[in-house]
Amino acid sequence: MEINIILFPNFETLDVFGPAEVFGKVEKFRLDYFSLNGGIITNNDNIRIATKKIEDIKNTAASVLFIPGGTGTRIEINNPELLNAIKKIAENSKYVLTVCTGSALLAKTGLLDTHKATSNKRAMDWVKTSSDKVLWDDDARWIKDDKYYTSSGISAGIDMALSFVKDLFGFDEAEKISLRMEYNWQTEN
Amino acid sequence: MEINIILFPNFETLDVFGPAEVFGKVEKFRLDYFSLNGGIITNNDNIRIATKKIEDIKNTAASVLFIPGGTGTRIEINNPELLNAIKKIAENSKYVLTVCTGSALLAKTGLLDTHKATSNKRAMDWVKTSSDKVLWDDDARWIKDDKYYTSSGISAGIDMALSFVKDLFGFDEAEKISLRMEYNWQTEN
Repeated sequence: MEINIILFPNFETLDVFGPAEVFGKVEKFRLDYFSLNGGIITNNDNIRIATKKIEDIKNTAASVLFIPGGTGTRIEINNPELLNAIKKIAENSKYVLTVCTGSALLAKTGLLDTHKATSNKRAMDWVKTSSDKVLWDDDARWIKDDKYYTSSGISAGIDMALSFVKDLFGFDEAEKISLRMEYNWQTEN
Repeated sequence: MEINIILFPNFETLDVFGPAEVFGKVEKFRLDYFSLNGGIITNNDNIRIATKKIEDIKNTAASVLFIPGGTGTRIEINNPELLNAIKKIAENSKYVLTVCTGSALLAKTGLLDTHKATSNKRAMDWVKTSSDKVLWDDDARWIKDDKYYTSSGISAGIDMALSFVKDLFGFDEAEKISLRMEYNWQTEN
């Protein structure tokens, strides 16, 4: 099961690598990192990650699309090429997960219309400008609606990732990972 | 203030990027990522991160050396070239921080002799083989002794990183970062 992670300049560090830590412990998951044009993607914490091109994503009916947040989403929300790519991949993916303001990028494609979703509470006013057809939740740490999982900021993405593992493979599997991470998993959203 | 982060193949994802998320929010910190020979370093979660050469570290009396853990430490513990580089940089750094089995690499250099230190509780038996002169603590989530901060596994590194910020810049500054991260900071070690 492919976990296809979308990166862009100034993605939020832990939005990506918290869930990556969780998903990397699941035997059935294979993680890979993509950006619109491939190559090295840099962020605010001076992390430089090597990525493949989005067009090289193995987009199967069993694959998972993962979109982080970060200050870079304020730029990418105006990048139709990226949004179109996200829309195309999201439509064909089994699940789509977003952390923080990543939900604004997904909402902008229209795919979250009529769905419940959430985002970083400190960025909610801005996130809501991405779509007025999404049923935005101002309180949840994360929300699952149909195949869409959206979460609040940073660490909330880890809680969502663990809950995603729980939904697919059971509580024990998720708890085992949280214990190995010495992480205080907030199991309730 | 430079935060010099040492990477090697199969470093543990969140050991690095949890603290990087914290340190990246501190205005006075500048983060950079190094490996013995530079270039792309890959880990178990298929993350490929671009690094500079260790010899290019700006090792000033104000700099911080950061060493993560991960399965790769079981290889690097037998890499005298890396251990010698770590020793040289650690001696000249103002602070040295390790997460998880990163403390085994530091202990192997002899610099932790007679100091209190800790590590991942699930790897403690192996970690102790790196040095019998370290005062290993089997319980602490993290420990500060002199200029050395060592922590237990993965998320414990985030708690340690926040406490490091607290020690340098006060509780309010650290709490502000933990809130922004929506992270349940375990303030007691």
